[in-house]
Amino acid sequence: MREGLEHPGLISLAAGFTDNPTLPVTETRTIIESLLKGKSSSSSLQYGTTYGDDPLRKLTAQRLTQMDKCSKQSKDYHPDRFLITHGSQQLLYILNEVLFDPGDIVLIEDPSYFVYLGIMQSHGVRGKGIQMEPDGLDLLSLETTLNTLKKSGELARLKALYLVSYHSNPTGVTTCAAKKEAALKILKSYEKAAGHPIYLIEDAAYRELSFIGKDTPSALSFNNASDRVIYTSTYSKPFATGIRVGYGLLPEPVLTAATRVKGNHDFGTANFLQQILSKAISGGKYKEHIQKLRKRYASKARAMTRACEKHFPEKVKWENPEGGLYLWVNLPKKIKTGLKSKLFKQALKQQVLYVPGNLCYCDDDTRPKPNHQMRLSFGSASVKDIEEGITRLGRAIKRVM
Amino acid sequence: MREGLEHPGLISLAAGFTDNPTLPVTETRTIIESLLKGKSSSSSLQYGTTYGDDPLRKLTAQRLTQMDKCSKQSKDYHPDRFLITHGSQQLLYILNEVLFDPGDIVLIEDPSYFVYLGIMQSHGVRGKGIQMEPDGLDLLSLETTLNTLKKSGELARLKALYLVSYHSNPTGVTTCAAKKEAALKILKSYEKAAGHPIYLIEDAAYRELSFIGKDTPSALSFNNASDRVIYTSTYSKPFATGIRVGYGLLPEPVLTAATRVKGNHDFGTANFLQQILSKAISGGKYKEHIQKLRKRYASKARAMTRACEKHFPEKVKWENPEGGLYLWVNLPKKIKTGLKSKLFKQALKQQVLYVPGNLCYCDDDTRPKPNHQMRLSFGSASVKDIEEGITRLGRAIKRVM
Repeated sequence: MREGLEHPGLISLAAGFTDNPTLPVTETRTIIESLLKGKSSSSSLQYGTTYGDDPLRKLTAQRLTQMDKCSKQSKDYHPDRFLITHGSQQLLYILNEVLFDPGDIVLIEDPSYFVYLGIMQSHGVRGKGIQMEPDGLDLLSLETTLNTLKKSGELARLKALYLVSYHSNPTGVTTCAAKKEAALKILKSYEKAAGHPIYLIEDAAYRELSFIGKDTPSALSFNNASDRVIYTSTYSKPFATGIRVGYGLLPEPVLTAATRVKGNHDFGTANFLQQILSKAISGGKYKEHIQKLRKRYASKARAMTRACEKHFPEKVKWENPEGGLYLWVNLPKKIKTGLKSKLFKQALKQQVLYVPGNLCYCDDDTRPKPNHQMRLSFGSASVKDIEEGITRLGRAIKRVM
Repeated sequence: MREGLEHPGLISLAAGFTDNPTLPVTETRTIIESLLKGKSSSSSLQYGTTYGDDPLRKLTAQRLTQMDKCSKQSKDYHPDRFLITHGSQQLLYILNEVLFDPGDIVLIEDPSYFVYLGIMQSHGVRGKGIQMEPDGLDLLSLETTLNTLKKSGELARLKALYLVSYHSNPTGVTTCAAKKEAALKILKSYEKAAGHPIYLIEDAAYRELSFIGKDTPSALSFNNASDRVIYTSTYSKPFATGIRVGYGLLPEPVLTAATRVKGNHDFGTANFLQQILSKAISGGKYKEHIQKLRKRYASKARAMTRACEKHFPEKVKWENPEGGLYLWVNLPKKIKTGLKSKLFKQALKQQVLYVPGNLCYCDDDTRPKPNHQMRLSFGSASVKDIEEGITRLGRAIKRVM
């Protein structure tokens, strides 16, 4: 982020920033005008509660119930089960504090969201990489890993599976519903041996940024799943990243513990931001904005993949994204992409920045860390910059190859 | 907070909420109108950096330099040394993560800010209470405690002194400059024996809420102090609690470590809130607002102490506050004020809520925890409610006495 912000000549395809021109300036202005008018207007500038604004939790519960096509009366989606945070990042951090002790183990996609890896490391939590397939988690890899942990006596340290389930950061992969349901069953079957619950942390940050208009039910929607699924998501990326509001739906006793830690962090999420989101959702502006955003990102993703087709050598491969903000690029295995690689230096020389793929793999000595991939983002760069950035990157790749 | 928000019949003199009618509704509306107008307006809705908005850090550095009457060129107040957080609470939390290991010791006022005690406890950090005098920290008590720690071999676990230095929460006491300077020297003289730096965490949350128009220089202003003073403060209480923006000035290596942890928490404080504060300060609205607020709180504090004079029995004592949000009330020692006391129950029956004084003392088995005091806040209640609340509380006290 810092590199991208501080070097104006550099085209950053690295940061997960969102698209500047589509940020909801007019919408936010209109919302705030109505928010700061009238009798009760001052309450939006006052503290809220630690768990979050009640209307926002209610609206969030309604939306999630609808997206999951569940019964409106389902207790699993009750507003009281929601916690509002400063972005879903803060919730992921708090979950780490609440669920794990140093030395505990988390199963995690190979590759996964690199900031999450940083959180894990900073708390001394170990990761075990689970392989991925085009439709998500590789269940065989999941079973094998669980079995290995059971045999080595380490299952008692396993607390959760962390899954970026929709248009994953960094690969763009969505894990299909059947696999999520199967994964939950597999995890449950190891709980007795583990001696405690094994949670599925479903990070749905990119769920609403789908280009293809197709949604997958969350893991919450399966029978008897709600006591093991921790669902986290955000309004920041779909609405405005400068307005940091995320949320989670948590089972007990995780909810109570997380709410207490949230209280210690900051008493609760900035109330003014929550009020803006509440109004955006209840007044329909959020929905309108999301639709605009999907089209925008779809067209930027296309611009990126078209440029890749044009400027990348044939041996470089990728999947066209169906949502999210990222393109995951595979180079021939002999071409290293890491921070110290020739390619990374050459890319900087050409004034373009990417996220090296190896940063997205947890430390897991049962497999080597792949070092021939890169994460590109079409989020913040303009179409012109995407085209120019990919041209530069293509040039860098060709020089190194 | 929850009690106060959820029982409308109850008058809460407990929560540290701020005054609703003086919240800067019009000011905020005007600021946002100008913020969301024009070409670069979308950037305020985009992510910022982890350490915080550069103009806001610069403005904060300027203000602090002025308040401390220091040279404009002083490196000690350089904007790069500042970190912006979601309220100063978040910074206090992060400092706890960065500075302390479980079992470490923090010196802390007796009594002190109870949420800070909660943060300490949740990280397994132990407190040692330092006695207080009307002009702040009791230096003899500080020396004695340090000596005791040295003798018992525990000095190696001592990492910091936490001091709410201006119009303290909960007592309203301000520690005078001479005492802060002396405390720093005393701490430094024990560093060799401790084997590491001992920091002074100066929590200046209430500095700008002075009624008497007199300021005290911060501990940063003393010679050679800037490598040992961690200064934390906030814009939330002086401006709007719904807009959660706090800040700190940190020496290395604490700054780098804290910024990294902040990145893991949430990447950085909601940029939109920082932009609002930047504009409020640079356009003069913040200063105007503070002046209004000081008058308002001064008059509410007077309303509270006048009501106390009228309705409290003679044996109940307090100091008239010169700033902040709180009145610290001493009852005769035999009258208990804790959550399980007759008085607390009687107060609830009379529909009035206070913070029991014993919650504000750290667990320190070298002294008994006083249990005959209470913290009252004149922050959020209206003058009418303050008068009625004190009437009720007086009735409750009389019944119990």
